[in-house]
Amino acid sequence: MGAEGVPQPDRIMIEPPYLMFIGDVHDQLAAKTAQGVVDWRPEQCPGQLALEGCKADLGIPAMTIEEAKAAGCRTMIVGVVNSGGTMPDHWSGVIVRALEAGMDVASGLHMRLADDPAIAAAAREHGRQLFDVRHPTRRFKTGTGVKRPGKRLLAVGTDCSCGKKYTALAVEKEMRARGMKADFRATGQTGILIAGQGVAIDAVVADFISGAVEWLAPAADADHWDCIEGQGSLFHPAFAGVSLGLLHGAQPDALVLCHEPTRTHMRGLPHQPLPDLAVCMARNVEAAQLTNPDVRFVGLSINTRALGEAEAGACLAKLEDRFGLPAFDPVRQGAARLVDALR
Amino acid sequence: MGAEGVPQPDRIMIEPPYLMFIGDVHDQLAAKTAQGVVDWRPEQCPGQLALEGCKADLGIPAMTIEEAKAAGCRTMIVGVVNSGGTMPDHWSGVIVRALEAGMDVASGLHMRLADDPAIAAAAREHGRQLFDVRHPTRRFKTGTGVKRPGKRLLAVGTDCSCGKKYTALAVEKEMRARGMKADFRATGQTGILIAGQGVAIDAVVADFISGAVEWLAPAADADHWDCIEGQGSLFHPAFAGVSLGLLHGAQPDALVLCHEPTRTHMRGLPHQPLPDLAVCMARNVEAAQLTNPDVRFVGLSINTRALGEAEAGACLAKLEDRFGLPAFDPVRQGAARLVDALR
Repeated sequence: MGAEGVPQPDRIMIEPPYLMFIGDVHDQLAAKTAQGVVDWRPEQCPGQLALEGCKADLGIPAMTIEEAKAAGCRTMIVGVVNSGGTMPDHWSGVIVRALEAGMDVASGLHMRLADDPAIAAAAREHGRQLFDVRHPTRRFKTGTGVKRPGKRLLAVGTDCSCGKKYTALAVEKEMRARGMKADFRATGQTGILIAGQGVAIDAVVADFISGAVEWLAPAADADHWDCIEGQGSLFHPAFAGVSLGLLHGAQPDALVLCHEPTRTHMRGLPHQPLPDLAVCMARNVEAAQLTNPDVRFVGLSINTRALGEAEAGACLAKLEDRFGLPAFDPVRQGAARLVDALR
Repeated sequence: MGAEGVPQPDRIMIEPPYLMFIGDVHDQLAAKTAQGVVDWRPEQCPGQLALEGCKADLGIPAMTIEEAKAAGCRTMIVGVVNSGGTMPDHWSGVIVRALEAGMDVASGLHMRLADDPAIAAAAREHGRQLFDVRHPTRRFKTGTGVKRPGKRLLAVGTDCSCGKKYTALAVEKEMRARGMKADFRATGQTGILIAGQGVAIDAVVADFISGAVEWLAPAADADHWDCIEGQGSLFHPAFAGVSLGLLHGAQPDALVLCHEPTRTHMRGLPHQPLPDLAVCMARNVEAAQLTNPDVRFVGLSINTRALGEAEAGACLAKLEDRFGLPAFDPVRQGAARLVDALR
């Protein structure tokens, strides 16, 4: 990981392999974060630990803490959300046992692991680390906008939750498969657990959004690509500030527009229409030019899950024709055509 | 304060009159925050307290803590910065004495007052409040972008530190002088000390920028104006995210562009040119239309301090001619022509 020959700043690393803890959540959706880690890093996830009554299943072998330890697991990942957002008391005991067994614990929960006194005490006693990936712990500098070496690709969107993380990961995967130097740069909790590092950018203090991204995607070799996970949308009335700071800090050379074509309004905001794709692309380019005048869109990543095969093909062909750029579904097709276009 | 007939959310209020504490700072610039409070709320600032060797002077009577208490002061304001950003130990004793005398203490320092054990203990013992205006203490919701009643004016800028606070205050002053309903809404530490309330928007967690502004400038009477202090610039590579979230949360009906015409680059960033005024205005309108389609620029507030009288007049005339909007210096002229244009 990281570009050769370029000093990397100190980074917190969550160490694989992972034991995936999914508690006793009531449905598969509640284990979405854990599933993302298994989907993208299956080789790092030898087993899952579920409690009685759990309705989620990651499709990997069941393991006890002892079995996971014997299998070499170094970290237990709490990759589930329960209704209410807090951690049930009966999960605490399992986490303590993982710490006692010598594993670190990383969590995507809103509450901090160390806010549970038993967990905090066990981590101290056994010298283990707790990672709360929603809570940035380091201090950042404010951004400077000074151009740094290395290439950067940023996934931006018409809305939240339309495939930005998936797109950046698919591009990293394709680039690495071709022997290119590439690193996925995570800006949200699932991405951080997948990458083992990153910054939950929406949890950073507002003044430091772009500075945190400058830190996250630092100077690198001229032929190295950072594939940066975007957040929100310039057209989302709650989160556009995060999206703009991320855009400025990323200094992207290449932008990919992520879009879910069946959505009729911004997620969670029935009064807020989705932006026109051309307008959304124009605004992203305009804004990104502040820190990289050479920025350009290189493709459209379309989440066609809600469409049939034929419909999806027609949708992609129409967009490709309209914009003269590769339009692809990273799940159905991977990012090969995008990386072709980049070279 | 606040619109009649509209319930106001719970707000922390810093209670005047104020004793202005300026410590023993080395120059007048270090007392900039205190001077701002005295300039805009002289009737709330009966006296200043300086320590031996202080090189700043707010031009108001010197008072001891006992005299201030006798004069009715309810809060001591620490409106100075010392080099290094921390609080010298010998200020702590003065703050403790103010608390013992029954005053609250409000501070614009980076460090929290309660991080000094003696200050924290004295506040507890005497039942007094400590206000660290750089540190938001309440939790905000994420923004919704839902249009709310009442009128809002937002001062935006080509850069940081070019007159946005001054402009919003000058508009509030002019509106109130005409019997209009108007409230200045503070988004930075000096503004908060002037208004006695507000949110240091650059210190809010990134996800809540626009939500915090929706809280700060809530639903109000149809003929009530919130005059909102802007922050940063859409063209500042470090702070544009804050500026955009603020713009979306404010839902401005009226924008005023603030500009310092002699500046050759963005403040603190020699490599970053200032934006063209027309481009800056177009981008602000485009972005603001997301939450208020009827937004428009109503004037240009030009900080001509660095220019002579004739030069300033020529500069304003040229801008007025170019944009067909009132161009005024709020210090030299006040905001009367802007408010004329608004009605």
